[in-house]
Amino acid sequence: MRLVDLSHPVETGMQVFPGDPPVRTELAATVPQDGFQVSGLHLGTHSGTHVDAPLHTVDGGAPVDTLDLLRLLGPARIVRVAGLKKTDTIRWTDVEAQLEEVAPGDIVLFHTGWSRYFDTGAYLQHPVIEVLIAERLVAAGVTVIGVDTLNPDPTPGAGGVLDLPVHSVILGAGGAILENLTNLDAVTWPNPVVSALPLKLRGLDGSPVRAVALEL
Amino acid sequence: MRLVDLSHPVETGMQVFPGDPPVRTELAATVPQDGFQVSGLHLGTHSGTHVDAPLHTVDGGAPVDTLDLLRLLGPARIVRVAGLKKTDTIRWTDVEAQLEEVAPGDIVLFHTGWSRYFDTGAYLQHPVIEVLIAERLVAAGVTVIGVDTLNPDPTPGAGGVLDLPVHSVILGAGGAILENLTNLDAVTWPNPVVSALPLKLRGLDGSPVRAVALEL
Repeated sequence: MRLVDLSHPVETGMQVFPGDPPVRTELAATVPQDGFQVSGLHLGTHSGTHVDAPLHTVDGGAPVDTLDLLRLLGPARIVRVAGLKKTDTIRWTDVEAQLEEVAPGDIVLFHTGWSRYFDTGAYLQHPVIEVLIAERLVAAGVTVIGVDTLNPDPTPGAGGVLDLPVHSVILGAGGAILENLTNLDAVTWPNPVVSALPLKLRGLDGSPVRAVALEL
Repeated sequence: MRLVDLSHPVETGMQVFPGDPPVRTELAATVPQDGFQVSGLHLGTHSGTHVDAPLHTVDGGAPVDTLDLLRLLGPARIVRVAGLKKTDTIRWTDVEAQLEEVAPGDIVLFHTGWSRYFDTGAYLQHPVIEVLIAERLVAAGVTVIGVDTLNPDPTPGAGGVLDLPVHSVILGAGGAILENLTNLDAVTWPNPVVSALPLKLRGLDGSPVRAVALEL
């Protein structure tokens, strides 16, 4: 079985969505003093590679601990879009051919290559997904999508206006969005299976995940 | 595909190993105020259902982000031990027959039923595993084990002496230990596959996980 890790490392001071809780880890017990080592973790539900639950943007939406795990562990399609520049929009017509055979329940991941900018300012000026893509996917029975960027929608700069059309469509359909994926270029075999199981965070809006692609 | 969730919910004030960091979650952004909801998470690397990496007890041991994920996602054997009372020891002779066909790389989980006491004082007085079991498993090529208790070794009361023989054998062999599993009674089919992938916590000693059993 082949496995590719699609997750960024989680560590103190790593880049997060502007305004999100900072990531910090610290020693809480040590082998010399306590006989074992334990660390304290401080982070946000949307730190690093993570899943958005409907509650992230939908009033009364499903929290992350109630998501059907079989929707976050299954066949995936990786849509590859090359040559993108900052804040470019990926349009339906750019990806339509790659989505012809998409099946209900598939996990659809968009590979832009933008993960190479993680932890830099350029990461905030990522490509975005046209809302028509989300609408067509939901119509085709796909409600779990993922991106190797911070956000499928534009990330506003200081004082900018927040607009979350892709979130609204996917999460409004009771789906889930994977963000901050990486290493999608290493998934080179056909019919990968993706696993991105959230922590069972009671009543919360999202969760960091260890996302992987598998060749079964 | 059938799936059983082997994980306890993670929530503010949940039971943790005595002295470990408390679990607390809080709202960090809300839909009315910010347009989306984000939560802050404060917990320990060994909160709730989690994996111990060698670094948890072994000086210079491997941190959790370097574990081979294919060892934490694969065929599992569930060893069932009924009728246990508090602080009972599970002996090699109790489980030998169930481990006759264990294969190198199997994940071996011990089902005691003690998870029903989670979040009560009785949970601290759990059954433990005889070190001979760990030694025999390592000799058979098994280095990932799991328990539906707080700890495969005794959990000391206030002022008690810490003794971690099972941790020393398994983690000393470069393995991993899953703790605070639940719902093992619901895994009723033969040859389950277990997934318990840790977060990619750089250089740390363990990680909360969403552990599941699958029928593939």
